[in-house]
Amino acid sequence: MTKQTLQIIKIGGNVINNEEALFSFLKDFSELKGPKILVHGGGKKATEVSSAMGLQPKMINGRRVTDEATVEVVTMVYAGLLNKKITAKLQGFGCNAMGLSGTDANCILAHKRIVKDIDYGFAGDVDAVNSEIINVLLQNNVTPVFCAITHDKKGQLLNTNADTIASEVSIGMSSMYNTELNFVFELKGVLENIEDKDSVIKEINSEKYEELVARGIIADGMLPKMHNCFNSLKKGVSKVKIGDASLIKNSTKLYTTLTI
Amino acid sequence: MTKQTLQIIKIGGNVINNEEALFSFLKDFSELKGPKILVHGGGKKATEVSSAMGLQPKMINGRRVTDEATVEVVTMVYAGLLNKKITAKLQGFGCNAMGLSGTDANCILAHKRIVKDIDYGFAGDVDAVNSEIINVLLQNNVTPVFCAITHDKKGQLLNTNADTIASEVSIGMSSMYNTELNFVFELKGVLENIEDKDSVIKEINSEKYEELVARGIIADGMLPKMHNCFNSLKKGVSKVKIGDASLIKNSTKLYTTLTI
Repeated sequence: MTKQTLQIIKIGGNVINNEEALFSFLKDFSELKGPKILVHGGGKKATEVSSAMGLQPKMINGRRVTDEATVEVVTMVYAGLLNKKITAKLQGFGCNAMGLSGTDANCILAHKRIVKDIDYGFAGDVDAVNSEIINVLLQNNVTPVFCAITHDKKGQLLNTNADTIASEVSIGMSSMYNTELNFVFELKGVLENIEDKDSVIKEINSEKYEELVARGIIADGMLPKMHNCFNSLKKGVSKVKIGDASLIKNSTKLYTTLTI
Repeated sequence: MTKQTLQIIKIGGNVINNEEALFSFLKDFSELKGPKILVHGGGKKATEVSSAMGLQPKMINGRRVTDEATVEVVTMVYAGLLNKKITAKLQGFGCNAMGLSGTDANCILAHKRIVKDIDYGFAGDVDAVNSEIINVLLQNNVTPVFCAITHDKKGQLLNTNADTIASEVSIGMSSMYNTELNFVFELKGVLENIEDKDSVIKEINSEKYEELVARGIIADGMLPKMHNCFNSLKKGVSKVKIGDASLIKNSTKLYTTLTI
């Protein structure tokens, strides 16, 4: 039996920081046919609220640490303000969105990151996705909208990487659906030359990936993103694309497709 | 056919402000058998976050007005921090809770309160409860946990009275379930004498209610609460009780039952 296609779209960066860009994206998203899931990052708002509340970001060796005050702020901003603003806007566009965090119906179970050299505090690493309840929602024409907050089933909320959420949800739904994972951000795709915004590498397979890493074309923040992409493909996701907001409108052929 | 009993429990006041009292209540709630829904108010936390962010509460004629900054803060605190903290804690106690606001799957549709003498800003009056999707959740052993944020289906989030949410959800579910609505707060029930915390009036019917209002026994904040109670009973809710946290443990016989 052919599986139904499920689109998972992750937004972050400028798409979420700029209200106009966000609403324009949400309009396009609401018009996508078929079952779909939105995953959103946090963006600048958490930093703004933290500063307004007089909290200092806690850093160890240049890495941000999620202390108790921070996990409260990100829960407020990601699961509260952003998640509900996005959900309300999608409802306004006629898309039956439901905002969710990982704790809701135990959708995404995680554990507090194991302390090796650095204690990242209340940062969560994903253990399991509750595909059954997510499927119940999809079958009832509900569009889940996930923020990047998970829990440990012992009462603790955890701050989690939104790319990882998107990747794990896609993998989790792959037994039931033909899953397509789309990472939407401010660039048109993975760039050959960072100075040239149109120098999109149209296709990257595992071999090409190794080459691009060796050449330093893929570096820094793109490394964990690409790791998530290939991990998804290896674990059953059928298609992964990276591009800007025009990606989901099919109005562009300019984006990066990943294959293994 | 006998309808299944659905318990709707609303918590507010000291039960939500004191973390120890809250967690103790949530433990008891998690042990309740059968389908159930939790509705929570906001408590002091929103005021604390507002102050920390340097926002001044906007008042007109002594009534709080929900301006744009305030609706953002209450969405953060009610739908984010409190809702997810409660949900995570319930998950920790083995209750399959799902935190929801009215915008999620359009569960609770409202409109911005019509301006008569006072413009209350982004305050919502409830129009409809989406009993079908709530029933889907209940039938999948999910326990909905509602905060007091609704939406207008045009993209706007609205601050809504939590007692009203509890009442409207109970009424909405009454066609499918035998609904029992419980208001849990810091007192043991409606008191004959406010100085004597044990002077609980065990039963109040419409006639007795009129008498208590005339005598000034029921006044101020209790008036809208009682209005919600009687409105619920008139519109199909089978039982309404008011009491403290011990109410749901059946360990006490001291609470107020309302009848029409």
